Amino acid sequence: MNRISKLALALACCLALHAEAAEPAAKKPLATAEIIAQSKPDDWRALDPENTLYLELASGRVVMALAPDFAPKHVANVKALVREGYFDGLAFLRSQDNYVVQWGDPNGDDKDKQRAMKQGQRALKAEFDRRWAKTLPFTPLGNVDGYSPEGGFSGGFPAARDVKNGRAWLAHCYGMLGAGRGDTADSGSGAELYVVIGNAPRHLDRNVTLLGRVVQGMELLSVLPRGTGPLGFYEKPEQYVPIKSIKVAADVPESERTRLEVMRTDSDAFKDLIESRRNRREDWFLAKSNYVELCNVPLPVRPAPTK
Amino acid sequence: MNRISKLALALACCLALHAEAAEPAAKKPLATAEIIAQSKPDDWRALDPENTLYLELASGRVVMALAPDFAPKHVANVKALVREGYFDGLAFLRSQDNYVVQWGDPNGDDKDKQRAMKQGQRALKAEFDRRWAKTLPFTPLGNVDGYSPEGGFSGGFPAARDVKNGRAWLAHCYGMLGAGRGDTADSGSGAELYVVIGNAPRHLDRNVTLLGRVVQGMELLSVLPRGTGPLGFYEKPEQYVPIKSIKVAADVPESERTRLEVMRTDSDAFKDLIESRRNRREDWFLAKSNYVELCNVPLPVRPAPTK
Repeated sequence: MNRISKLALALACCLALHAEAAEPAAKKPLATAEIIAQSKPDDWRALDPENTLYLELASGRVVMALAPDFAPKHVANVKALVREGYFDGLAFLRSQDNYVVQWGDPNGDDKDKQRAMKQGQRALKAEFDRRWAKTLPFTPLGNVDGYSPEGGFSGGFPAARDVKNGRAWLAHCYGMLGAGRGDTADSGSGAELYVVIGNAPRHLDRNVTLLGRVVQGMELLSVLPRGTGPLGFYEKPEQYVPIKSIKVAADVPESERTRLEVMRTDSDAFKDLIESRRNRREDWFLAKSNYVELCNVPLPVRPAPTK
Repeated sequence: MNRISKLALALACCLALHAEAAEPAAKKPLATAEIIAQSKPDDWRALDPENTLYLELASGRVVMALAPDFAPKHVANVKALVREGYFDGLAFLRSQDNYVVQWGDPNGDDKDKQRAMKQGQRALKAEFDRRWAKTLPFTPLGNVDGYSPEGGFSGGFPAARDVKNGRAWLAHCYGMLGAGRGDTADSGSGAELYVVIGNAPRHLDRNVTLLGRVVQGMELLSVLPRGTGPLGFYEKPEQYVPIKSIKVAADVPESERTRLEVMRTDSDAFKDLIESRRNRREDWFLAKSNYVELCNVPLPVRPAPTK
């Protein structure tokens, strides 16, 4: 095996099983790939078609999971917009390096030219955070999260909570989906959406409504040519990256769906995964971190087993 | 101003001056753009041509600053390889989403086919960290860095130190340049290089030799099509992204150099900048973080003033 491949393997998420993987787990802490390989069916769940979006680009499909537990009004509004075809034919307007890609109506603020909405709303009350409740699943990260009293994972999303003050919120990690807003808290609605493509901009937490995440197809968004205008806006309309359509998975014929499972973030397998990221167990690693940043724990995704 | 632009502006690094910027700094903490606008010439330094590389792609030039204070042997070896033309005509072999792009000789491990080296070395003693010395500049981050005893900045690079044990090292932030290695610590040399294009993989700190950073042109690397093979390797040679050449800036005629200045990370302006990132001062932000992750402090770069 060549040197490049060695480095690559050691850094990988999904490796072939080591020979030792058949030994009892207690004997040796498992590396990420082994945890995934040894996981049980119950450690996974299928995406809910009613809360899954397919963003169709010329380059392929981006699959996004919505977070109604955290942003119910924004999720409902985006689904309403999707179902009235609002996004179809709109475009990515912005691609800012190490930050976000953003899409919407290029004429969104021109009342004469903007695309009409039927059921959708142009502004909604902010959902920057929500009430913390014990009924909300929460798997703690297990070490300090500088940006919050406690980081963790809820329903497949990186999140944070402040139990003392009774609040919980989603975290701006790579691939998270958010609703652009203007100067005031209640000026967004999901008609303009962005996805994080760079180092986690966690300073945006509790400043913008997050409503979901990309679970497949990030590589189609992260390579969009960076806009040359200020903040990565495309300077010419011909640079816009067209959106063929956005659909709710439930509205797509079953044969055309992308059937995926994500690891349950409240499963024992995911808790093991966090540990395997806090201290990498692959032989390649010589120094251990004994720490993992919230956004450095990936959500394992796999094709759903055939029935 | 439309809603998208408002969001964009609020998120921006380099804004137009607010009207208030003319008031004494003590009256109002300055936002990032104001700090840059009000900085003094001494807060900046020109890149050292002898420790600056130009990576030339069909899409343009990537400018990289080398870190001889942290990886003197690797920097010397990469410069030797550059000066013997080793990299010219080689290619990017790997682009892994949210992780790294990597270049080198596709036949690097095939002794019959590999590109010959003259002065360059194929393996060097690791430079994962160095001795901590008070002569090394170090501007502390000022809040917890989970991955190290103390995060900060040294000579324009994100770094960390462990004063108790007398060590210091560079940190794997977006845009950092590293030397791929095999299974053993001393198996890298800089003949294969990678740049971080995703959320900071800080678990690599002290596991790989970092030797510099990109200071201009990241947007040319971050959009390289993701490889479809395991770990983002390109599966077919025709997918490789060719490198026209890599040159040491000092070897390029002055008229063809990219004359840049970077903010001195030991300047008062940079210390202010850290504070302005710990708590964003732009009006758009409603919730303050009171925290900044090491890799979320950008290094301001600007064209060098004309003489």
